[in-house]
Amino acid sequence: MVEHRYPVGGPPPARVTIVRVSHHPLDVSLPKYVEHALTEYLATRRASGEAMDASFTSAVDALSDFVLGGGKRIRPTYAWWGWRGAGGDPDGPLAQAVLTAVSSLELIQACALIHDDLMDASAVRRGKPTVHVAFAAKHGEQGWLGGSERFGMAAAVLIGDIALAWADDMLFAAGLPSDVLRRMSEPWRDMRTEMLAGQYLDVLTQARGDASPDAAVRIDRLKTAAYTVERPLHMGAAMAGGSPETIAGLRAFGADIGVAFQLRDDLLGVFGDPSVTGKPAGDDLAEGKRTLLVALGMELGADILHDALGTPDIGYSTVTEVRRQLIAVGAVDAVETRIDELTASALKALEATPLTEPAATRLAELAITSTKRSY
Amino acid sequence: MVEHRYPVGGPPPARVTIVRVSHHPLDVSLPKYVEHALTEYLATRRASGEAMDASFTSAVDALSDFVLGGGKRIRPTYAWWGWRGAGGDPDGPLAQAVLTAVSSLELIQACALIHDDLMDASAVRRGKPTVHVAFAAKHGEQGWLGGSERFGMAAAVLIGDIALAWADDMLFAAGLPSDVLRRMSEPWRDMRTEMLAGQYLDVLTQARGDASPDAAVRIDRLKTAAYTVERPLHMGAAMAGGSPETIAGLRAFGADIGVAFQLRDDLLGVFGDPSVTGKPAGDDLAEGKRTLLVALGMELGADILHDALGTPDIGYSTVTEVRRQLIAVGAVDAVETRIDELTASALKALEATPLTEPAATRLAELAITSTKRSY
Repeated sequence: MVEHRYPVGGPPPARVTIVRVSHHPLDVSLPKYVEHALTEYLATRRASGEAMDASFTSAVDALSDFVLGGGKRIRPTYAWWGWRGAGGDPDGPLAQAVLTAVSSLELIQACALIHDDLMDASAVRRGKPTVHVAFAAKHGEQGWLGGSERFGMAAAVLIGDIALAWADDMLFAAGLPSDVLRRMSEPWRDMRTEMLAGQYLDVLTQARGDASPDAAVRIDRLKTAAYTVERPLHMGAAMAGGSPETIAGLRAFGADIGVAFQLRDDLLGVFGDPSVTGKPAGDDLAEGKRTLLVALGMELGADILHDALGTPDIGYSTVTEVRRQLIAVGAVDAVETRIDELTASALKALEATPLTEPAATRLAELAITSTKRSY
Repeated sequence: MVEHRYPVGGPPPARVTIVRVSHHPLDVSLPKYVEHALTEYLATRRASGEAMDASFTSAVDALSDFVLGGGKRIRPTYAWWGWRGAGGDPDGPLAQAVLTAVSSLELIQACALIHDDLMDASAVRRGKPTVHVAFAAKHGEQGWLGGSERFGMAAAVLIGDIALAWADDMLFAAGLPSDVLRRMSEPWRDMRTEMLAGQYLDVLTQARGDASPDAAVRIDRLKTAAYTVERPLHMGAAMAGGSPETIAGLRAFGADIGVAFQLRDDLLGVFGDPSVTGKPAGDDLAEGKRTLLVALGMELGADILHDALGTPDIGYSTVTEVRRQLIAVGAVDAVETRIDELTASALKALEATPLTEPAATRLAELAITSTKRSY
């Protein structure tokens, strides 16, 4: 790892300790602090929402339950370490504002997931009914007027919209100085559009039946890599006023780790344990997701995919046979190799990036845990 | 009208001319300048979107067609006059940035309408197919995979999301100084939430079958009055650094004119000429909209409403009978009286507000045209 506080090319002077492990509470327990920031923010919005109209609180509560009910806080974590790596000080005067700013990424993610579940007609998320399903069920129980499904759809559209608008509000009210806000406006802007463009291409690609590995990777680059890793790192580093080299290095690292992360997710979507992933076995297959795994499987002759993909009531025996064929034809190995290659190139980019410790060490660890995780 | 540059209580000195009519191009042709700003902004986003992925341009084009294909630019107009009324100078250094900022309101409105049409299952907007219908039709024509309706829904959800995110981007990139951005963050934040809360309450109220005039007015206050008139005026005045008195006065004016505007819209939804409104006759009735007009009609005994409301294939003879009964029971008169009262109280608030001319005169004119219009 190259330390930007020391000249490149030699070891640091013996009397200086490079801290590669942090015991700072914000570094150690970031997800908890993120959840705390979100809890506080959503409580404020609930109070002002109640003042608008008491009935509006049911929307705020649904959003709060969703946001606070799970999630690995991956995007805030990458944004935080981007900030730390570019020199952000967890004991400095901006730390609290940066924490709030990175937490706002979870509201973008809430919009993405709530709308994605609606578009995919997914019934379960994190082991619980998805938003459109929960609201449709409530409509049915109450015997309300109109169609329950339509009501669930409308609630999910609006609650996702609220999350997207509030992400901006939370960022803007985080207390960042104007120059910091201005510096991060580019990654913030591009991140949101890349996420939405990725979703749009995903929908379009599935409809067109483009099952090529190329299309799958193009979507992964936008929908996950840019949105989940590259731009959060970029945003964090921009907040700290990172150099162009630091930002470019973090983005290169993030682009590769982001795709690797998605490929691991694709594998878990087919092979993961439902009690750990929070999604039914075979859910990705039932939805007909055109992942790189599926694209390679088809290319390599896993013929069962033609029948299994997009079958809403896919049975366990079909899922088992899909798994067997994906392994047998070599699709799983091919994806694992791709994950290894991307992780290696990401780590190489990271090593060449001028970063403040302990961020370099922590990002290298995150690269491994994000791409090797079993959940 | 009170002129804040002169002491209250007496006429201005004879040698000073109060300009009550403006010939400034921005004042005279604001909608054209708004459309130009939107055209330029969307062209930039199209170019950067194409660089992400060529297929994404179909989403950008659909949004551009929607935004540029019609609309009265009401929200930018109120925001502009809020700015002018609080002292904003159309020849000053901020005029261009303010024009861009007020134009961004049309992107919020695009999100609101695209998602609203989806939730209401409306087929026609401004005489053209709605976004979800157009994308569903394209899906069918191309013989793509999956359900056409689901594809149309997904496209409308995402294109609405893009509009909402880009509204923030356009505002932030308008070139406003940081202190101006900060001053307007409160009305900007509240406006978006009031719009979404209003939509949510609308959906909830219809489902619950709450047909009371009270519920209708509560929704109108949030969904139209705050979002369409009050907050745009507030935002404009905040950009100009208007005094608390000016802002409070404009908001009081806007809250009443906004409800009056909605009541006029409700009347046109039942009595308007489809060739002028761009919506089929009886569309509001078919959707089952619980407007104040409908609520009063039911209260006063227009019994046909029970059968007519929410009938997707409502016939012309039913629409005619609804019209007859609404007039006969006095619901139309009651709504017209309410419009007159609200317009009067709005104009009274306006007169008591310290404002720079020609804004006071122009806002008084807008109050009349917004509430008397036949289209």
